[in-house]
Amino acid sequence: MSRERLAENVYLAPDEDAVIILDQTKLPNEEEYLSLSTAEDMVEALQSMRVRGAPVIGIFAAYSLYVLARQIEADSYEDFYEQLHQQVDFLNSSRPTAANLRWALDRMESLVQAHKRASLPEIVQMIGDEAEAIQREDIQMCRQIAENGLTLLEEGDGILTHCNAGALAASRYGTALGPILLGHDQGMDIHVYVGETRPLLQGARLTSYELYREGVDVTLICDNMVSTVMKNGWIQAVFVGCDRIALNGDVANKIGTSGIAILAKHYGIPFYVLGPSSSIDPECPNGDGILIEMREAEEVRSAYFSEPIAPEGVACYNPSFDVTDHSLITAIITEKGVFYPPYDRTLAEALS
Amino acid sequence: MSRERLAENVYLAPDEDAVIILDQTKLPNEEEYLSLSTAEDMVEALQSMRVRGAPVIGIFAAYSLYVLARQIEADSYEDFYEQLHQQVDFLNSSRPTAANLRWALDRMESLVQAHKRASLPEIVQMIGDEAEAIQREDIQMCRQIAENGLTLLEEGDGILTHCNAGALAASRYGTALGPILLGHDQGMDIHVYVGETRPLLQGARLTSYELYREGVDVTLICDNMVSTVMKNGWIQAVFVGCDRIALNGDVANKIGTSGIAILAKHYGIPFYVLGPSSSIDPECPNGDGILIEMREAEEVRSAYFSEPIAPEGVACYNPSFDVTDHSLITAIITEKGVFYPPYDRTLAEALS
Repeated sequence: MSRERLAENVYLAPDEDAVIILDQTKLPNEEEYLSLSTAEDMVEALQSMRVRGAPVIGIFAAYSLYVLARQIEADSYEDFYEQLHQQVDFLNSSRPTAANLRWALDRMESLVQAHKRASLPEIVQMIGDEAEAIQREDIQMCRQIAENGLTLLEEGDGILTHCNAGALAASRYGTALGPILLGHDQGMDIHVYVGETRPLLQGARLTSYELYREGVDVTLICDNMVSTVMKNGWIQAVFVGCDRIALNGDVANKIGTSGIAILAKHYGIPFYVLGPSSSIDPECPNGDGILIEMREAEEVRSAYFSEPIAPEGVACYNPSFDVTDHSLITAIITEKGVFYPPYDRTLAEALS
Repeated sequence: MSRERLAENVYLAPDEDAVIILDQTKLPNEEEYLSLSTAEDMVEALQSMRVRGAPVIGIFAAYSLYVLARQIEADSYEDFYEQLHQQVDFLNSSRPTAANLRWALDRMESLVQAHKRASLPEIVQMIGDEAEAIQREDIQMCRQIAENGLTLLEEGDGILTHCNAGALAASRYGTALGPILLGHDQGMDIHVYVGETRPLLQGARLTSYELYREGVDVTLICDNMVSTVMKNGWIQAVFVGCDRIALNGDVANKIGTSGIAILAKHYGIPFYVLGPSSSIDPECPNGDGILIEMREAEEVRSAYFSEPIAPEGVACYNPSFDVTDHSLITAIITEKGVFYPPYDRTLAEALS
């Protein structure tokens, strides 16, 4: 009896000997699925961002650990746990700053430690059940975010989004794309504009691909066309995801988000941030404390181009994220509700 | 005796049998010069944008007509003029909306018509002198714009620019890059940030190349990083060129310019537009009357990439220019001076 396939981007092979993923680096030109059964292949997929998006990274790690646990040959719980822990460490090493990777693997280890007296086949089965539970919970959370966000959408709306916060990054509906996909399923007329999201083009490669495949009306623009589509009157709201939310409502998200928020304010367009409540960082009072990952110059100069677009000696600045000031954000939507300013008060409620 | 070479991007061959251009489509990876001696090659260079930038198009057309005039075999003025006029029409057909192309060729024809009684060798010589005069005037105008703009720059300033308004588009100093290059020549410490300017990447391919070659400190960014470099405190002023200026101060320029102006206002950074006074259109009361050229979807989806970045069916919006509202512009700098609001009054003075 094989488990139910809950999503198309990450799932167990029918014989449960491998995790199957849609290789996001090949999109949109190839829809290539990879079957991963060794820890080395799993780590490579994480590092090369074949599987990306915070929630999906956690789900993938959980299923990966299940596949690896099935391969363990052990005589005792201690022997089993030692081998399992080595795999956890190896998986964790792939993306040291990915919060959901560590979170999911910690959860699996705690489960195992809590059932020391169970038989080894029983423990392995529990790991599989827990991985499935993580994915089911993510689906439920995304659904709830979608429903909460949908209350902000109206028939005929034009929505601007940025980067990819859809089903490839999370489960089914995703986060920022959730209300759009749910509204589309319910027959709403919605028009989506997506910025290509330089340098790695997640908006073009992933979001336009996802929405087009689902039959949503989507128009791709270059990132510098946002002001024009807003001025044209085509945008009624901005929906973006988030990587981290500070307690005062400052939001870290893909580079370019803060500029879109300023343009939205200029044109009087509401700007919404969508994500799981686990994105709210209780240790982080405001955006000043959020470390911005700097990436290689070559991503700006060369990635995806047939030839370099600037002389080799030219400096390139390449911050991967920016921080959007809370004063520019109309509301923050999590699975727990729609939260309005003052965020220092409302987000505390969202966390409790 | 050959003419003096006035610029490196467009000049006459020593024997005056060809116009030599730097092929802008090959930059920055190849610095390839083309020697053009037939009308067909000259038209192809214009259409393929091997030579681009409004002022340079006029200069190129003028030198091209001189080279072609030298090839005419005629017995009489009438015979000569008829052949010359055919070449003018053919050159004009290459870029029907390029104002400077028509302007330069009209000027040459008027000159010829005014000297019907001169000998044919004398007329040909006058055409060559006039082409040289057009280039000398452009150099002088760019120099004056640079000097006027330099009064707005301070030691240590960080300047943001967009697209390419440098020596490749005009003569020597260019327009928006003029104050930067002049200041650099005078030993000023200036730091330039340039947005890559999707979809055709003129900021990366042309501006970062020009400034790097001149030894100016230049950093390339993606267009969506403008808000971040401004927030970092790295930008003291924005300098951009222009394609058309309405009488109320609304400015049409490369797509993305209006968004930069809004971000500059948000961060309290002055936003300057630089260009020749001929860019002010006395027929155009405000930006609503400026027609925005729409270009092909494939420029967004495919140009310069090794593979398409979005599925073929996805719609792409591709306006080539946008209009920046006059309320966002700190000053407009032409060869005649620095003009501040209210533009409906000051630009009328600039035209008189």
